[in-house]
Amino acid sequence: MTGQRTTLPPAARAIVRGDRRALARAITAVENGAPEADLLLRSTYSRTGRVPIIGFAGPLGVGKSSLLSALVTQLRAAGTTVGVIAIDPSSPFSGGSVLGDRIRFERRADDTGVFFRSMASRGASGGVAAATRDVARLMDAAGFGVILVETVGSGQVDVAIREIASTRVVVLVPHLGDEVQTLKAGLFEIADIFCVNKSDLPGSETAERYLSELAGLGPGPDGWRARVVRTSATVPSGIPGLWSAIEEHERFVAGSDVHRQAERRRLSDEIVGRVRDELTRELTLRLEAEAELRRLVDQVVARKLDPRSAADRLVAEERR
Amino acid sequence: MTGQRTTLPPAARAIVRGDRRALARAITAVENGAPEADLLLRSTYSRTGRVPIIGFAGPLGVGKSSLLSALVTQLRAAGTTVGVIAIDPSSPFSGGSVLGDRIRFERRADDTGVFFRSMASRGASGGVAAATRDVARLMDAAGFGVILVETVGSGQVDVAIREIASTRVVVLVPHLGDEVQTLKAGLFEIADIFCVNKSDLPGSETAERYLSELAGLGPGPDGWRARVVRTSATVPSGIPGLWSAIEEHERFVAGSDVHRQAERRRLSDEIVGRVRDELTRELTLRLEAEAELRRLVDQVVARKLDPRSAADRLVAEERR
Repeated sequence: MTGQRTTLPPAARAIVRGDRRALARAITAVENGAPEADLLLRSTYSRTGRVPIIGFAGPLGVGKSSLLSALVTQLRAAGTTVGVIAIDPSSPFSGGSVLGDRIRFERRADDTGVFFRSMASRGASGGVAAATRDVARLMDAAGFGVILVETVGSGQVDVAIREIASTRVVVLVPHLGDEVQTLKAGLFEIADIFCVNKSDLPGSETAERYLSELAGLGPGPDGWRARVVRTSATVPSGIPGLWSAIEEHERFVAGSDVHRQAERRRLSDEIVGRVRDELTRELTLRLEAEAELRRLVDQVVARKLDPRSAADRLVAEERR
Repeated sequence: MTGQRTTLPPAARAIVRGDRRALARAITAVENGAPEADLLLRSTYSRTGRVPIIGFAGPLGVGKSSLLSALVTQLRAAGTTVGVIAIDPSSPFSGGSVLGDRIRFERRADDTGVFFRSMASRGASGGVAAATRDVARLMDAAGFGVILVETVGSGQVDVAIREIASTRVVVLVPHLGDEVQTLKAGLFEIADIFCVNKSDLPGSETAERYLSELAGLGPGPDGWRARVVRTSATVPSGIPGLWSAIEEHERFVAGSDVHRQAERRRLSDEIVGRVRDELTRELTLRLEAEAELRRLVDQVVARKLDPRSAADRLVAEERR
């Protein structure tokens, strides 16, 4: 099992060595569900699991991309290498401004200490979460010091943040209306840190106080009490404070049994999910080839049998 | 199998007799996934399958609810009984106006020829589609002459319309900007009929012409060329034309082999899906009770084994 290291295929060795083009190709393979992705993820897995993955969620227009850009500048100044994954919303409600912000990252192409990748959120939420987790693993194996994941705050996509990030930052702006909407959408439950961005706008103290009061209602099930920080990505200000809060939470997680158990649970769920997917695929192919299914469908179409009873018969047959 | 008729349980008999309270209770049971729903759906299935199910999709603010209200008025005047299912968006982007419009339906409570029910779209899209299909079946068994299903045009929820409705109406307004957004969101592919509502606003002829040109590019895979109608729910005007187009499509569907095959396919998928769900549930319980899974997770946590290879071992064991 530890033999994985010696049998690393060439493309995997290139990723581990820090070859950016090999990493980019591997990520594309993950996005497309190409078969070579599977081999690369298997063979590089032993090199993963130590990097902090910081998730940023929040509604459109709160300036998450600018905030990440400012954070990357600070991290690079301290010599830390950074992988950034931006999950593009596929919803028609969003659009231009997000992409506009991202161009700032693309312009860093000359700095080999930053790797930026955007991913389309497409259909199923399970799909995005799984693909994002795999891309984060590849960046981890490639040796980046920290991974930042940005999503737009729609319930579907935030599942990715919940399942993957070791620290979850919810970014808001100083307008109570927006906050109330956001808290409704379930972002409150996932926040380890609240970041009131655009803090140069009026109302940011009120927003900070309001969130601090909410956070002060009590620590979460893991014993962590959400921090509230204020930032401005444009000034910029508050970025070191945001990073300190993130580091504080990362230290907390490292010593937390609840988080160790949660990580174990997630890996167990991933394994069971893979077994289920594989056996389900086989089952579907087998059932659809069966004459018995066609006979039952005939009866259901004719309303002589209901779909539930038809399924019961096939289940009974499978159990035999 | 045809013995179902003689063994109809009392609650199912009440639904078939047209007892509104029995129907309302059964729908609530479906929404909550309560066990009595299963029995009712099994026992009433033989009474379903003949009613037209007309789906209405489109973005927020195009006046779908008012349009449905005007359509219900016309259908009732002609003596047709109507079941209405409105799928409430769970997204924070929507809200008050939708609910406001719906109050018009609630006020028809004195007319026993109309049955209105709204459903929350909650999490999974598969979940909403399945629940909506079951509610439509109950209304069908209760003997309503036509069922109207209204959704807000977000990709997730429109799956319900695609899978359930026999005729799909996409409702738009005379502003090209909105239309382009909507077409992007995939509504174009599901439209049997385009309805340009609020046709008293400027630009409605242009919108009609634009959509007619798009529809004129060719018939869909079933041989149907989408119709374009103009309505105003407030005047009201165009409602008879809309209903004629719906009836024309229903006649087309009744004589179409493509649609018969598609219906067969949907029922087959439903049966296979139920078998899969049941066996998957059992498999998950069995795997999670296994010591071997715990041993494999230990190795994956320690990075001595990757999740894919761990899953392979369990799959191999299941196959033995």
